[in-house]
Order: sequence, then structure tokens, then C-alpha cells
Amino acid sequence: MTKLGRRPGDPEQTRQTILDAARRTFAAAGFDRATIRSIAADAGVDPALVMHHFGSKRQLFVAAHELPDDPVELFARIAELPVPERGAAFARAYLGLFADESSAGLSLLRAAAIDAGAAAMLREFIEHQVMPMGRSILDHPDVDGELRLALIVSHLLGLVVARRLIGVSVVADRDIDELVGAVAPLVQRSIDGTG
Amino acid sequence: MTKLGRRPGDPEQTRQTILDAARRTFAAAGFDRATIRSIAADAGVDPALVMHHFGSKRQLFVAAHELPDDPVELFARIAELPVPERGAAFARAYLGLFADESSAGLSLLRAAAIDAGAAAMLREFIEHQVMPMGRSILDHPDVDGELRLALIVSHLLGLVVARRLIGVSVVADRDIDELVGAVAPLVQRSIDGTG
Repeated sequence: MTKLGRRPGDPEQTRQTILDAARRTFAAAGFDRATIRSIAADAGVDPALVMHHFGSKRQLFVAAHELPDDPVELFARIAELPVPERGAAFARAYLGLFADESSAGLSLLRAAAIDAGAAAMLREFIEHQVMPMGRSILDHPDVDGELRLALIVSHLLGLVVARRLIGVSVVADRDIDELVGAVAPLVQRSIDGTG
Repeated sequence: MTKLGRRPGDPEQTRQTILDAARRTFAAAGFDRATIRSIAADAGVDPALVMHHFGSKRQLFVAAHELPDDPVELFARIAELPVPERGAAFARAYLGLFADESSAGLSLLRAAAIDAGAAAMLREFIEHQVMPMGRSILDHPDVDGELRLALIVSHLLGLVVARRLIGVSVVADRDIDELVGAVAPLVQRSIDGTG
């Protein structure tokens, strides 16, 4: 690492180097094919050091894209709530992921809209990380759980697109409390499996 | 018109010239500020000829962006159905707007995701054309109608983004009938105003 003129072992510098390598590697290879090993090689560090800093490929992806919350940990927290409270809690947390105009979540969404590589990366992350864990917030997840979860995630995604990307005023101008109040009963129906 | 070397009065050629001018003008000025007069000037034709071919600025916008259906006419058709049938009918029509991978509706959505001008154009069209007319499909539109309509449109928009832009398989691989069956009861609740 000294070839870049950095103090060897500066943990913050190492972390940034790994994050840069992760963004490049995820963008080029997609989420599934990117490996801790290939990211470490790009960063010029040992794979063990990547694991030491980030814990898992998923957590590295979350950090590299500056998502304010790890969706998998978020689902785990929601799943601990009583079923009737989950709709509002999930809607609030999800809209909060994109609350900031400069959020990297929005950048990722913008990139996915126009770039097949970015879309593939986001798709793989959603399909292989978010969806399997997300079922845990559903009541009776065995009954059409995948589709119910997809409806929930899509509903909130559509609100984010209307609110943050297109800027439709009726949703862009409302605060998150109002939106959560309106959308939570519908999200709750998909959680309950009562259509 | 002869200055462009075209046969004067070729209606299809005139129509294409107007559509090209409309796309340029809407993109540069947005939906609100673009006028029939400015589009006609760009096309080098009389404003009356633009009206003759397209009928209104809204219809010209729809034609210029190759939307397979005029959203305002679509709402009018849905509003004529019995209330309990509207959820499924609207979900089916809306998803159909983006059914084709090469649909111009998708191109518009992609452009809006990354370009402020395209986002403004789409926002103005939604706020000033789609939303006012869309209220007509709601039961008791006077009770929070704007927000209920925004929830419906957002829900379906999110499905389109997940299905067509990101390609999440659980929704991308289903046919429209299955998706309509799953989402229609939720859309119907917003139409009914029963959360």
C-alpha cells in the first residue's frame, strides 16, 4: 500500500480504498459475480482485511453505495415487531432510506434506470438478499409470500420514484408522516395477506 | 414547408415534422411552457395545422412520446365502469402502457430518472393532466382524492420500475393477469377510499 504514498495501516484510508474497489467491482461484475477476493485484489489488500472491515459482501455493498441502513438488518428489526405494527414501521423505514436528496440510494436507482449493469447489480441484490430476508416481515409468508413482498416493495419504490425522481407535488410536498399514514394500511394488508 | 424539399401538403410528412418539433420543444421548455404556437413555429407550420393533426397540446404530447394510450382518455373509460370493477381495469390498462420493452413510456421514465428537464416535463404532465382527470375514477374523490390517486399511480409505477427497469424476477416473470390479480384489490381499496 505504501506505493500510493499512504501511511501503511491507516484504517480509514484502507477502508476508502476497499470501498472504491468495491464500487468498481460491483459495477463491472454485478453483485453475484463480485467476490470479496476480487474486490480485495482490486484494492491491493488481503481478503481477510476486507472481511475485518465490512463483515460480509452484503454489508460491503451497503457501505459502498452509502445506503443509510442495511435492508437485511432493517427487515430483521421489523420482523421483531407485533404483526399489526409492521406496515407503518416498514413504510417509514423504507421511505427514510431515500429521504435525503443526495442519498446514494437515489443515485443507485437513477443508474439502474439507464444502465443495464447497474440494473443487474440492483436486481441481484434485491433478489438474493432483500427478498429472501424480507419474507420474515410477512404473516404466513408461505402463502404467496414472494409476490406479496414484491407488491410492498414496489408500492414504496413507486412512491420514492414519484416523490424523489419525478417530484410529483402531491407526494413530494407531504412529509413522511402523512405518506406513512396513507400507505401503511395498504402495506399492512400485504403483510397480513388479506389483499 | 417547401424549403425543406418536401412535397407541400404531404400530411404524413407534416405530422412527423410536427412530432419532431414537439419532442424538441417539450424537452426544452417542459410541458407547461411549451405552446402549440411555439411548436408550430419550430415545425414551420401554422398553429391551426397542429391543432388539425393532434387536437390539443395533451394529445400532441401523447403522440410525440408514443404513449400507446392517452392517460386522460383511459381515465374517462375507467370512470364509466361500475366502481368495483375499476381497480382491476385500471391496473390492467396501466401495466399495459409499459408492456412493450421498447415502449416510449419506458424511455420517458428512464429519461426522467436522470434528466431534470425530462423529469419536469413528466411531472407537469402528471400534475396538470393526469391527476385532475384521474380523480374521476375514485369513489368520493372529495375525501383525500389527490393522495389516494397518487398512491394508486405510485403503486403501479413501482411495479413497472421493478418489472421493466430493474427486472426483479418475481414481478418481471409474471404475466400481467397474475400481477393484476394481486395488485387490483389494493388499488380498489384506494378507489373505494377504504385504505
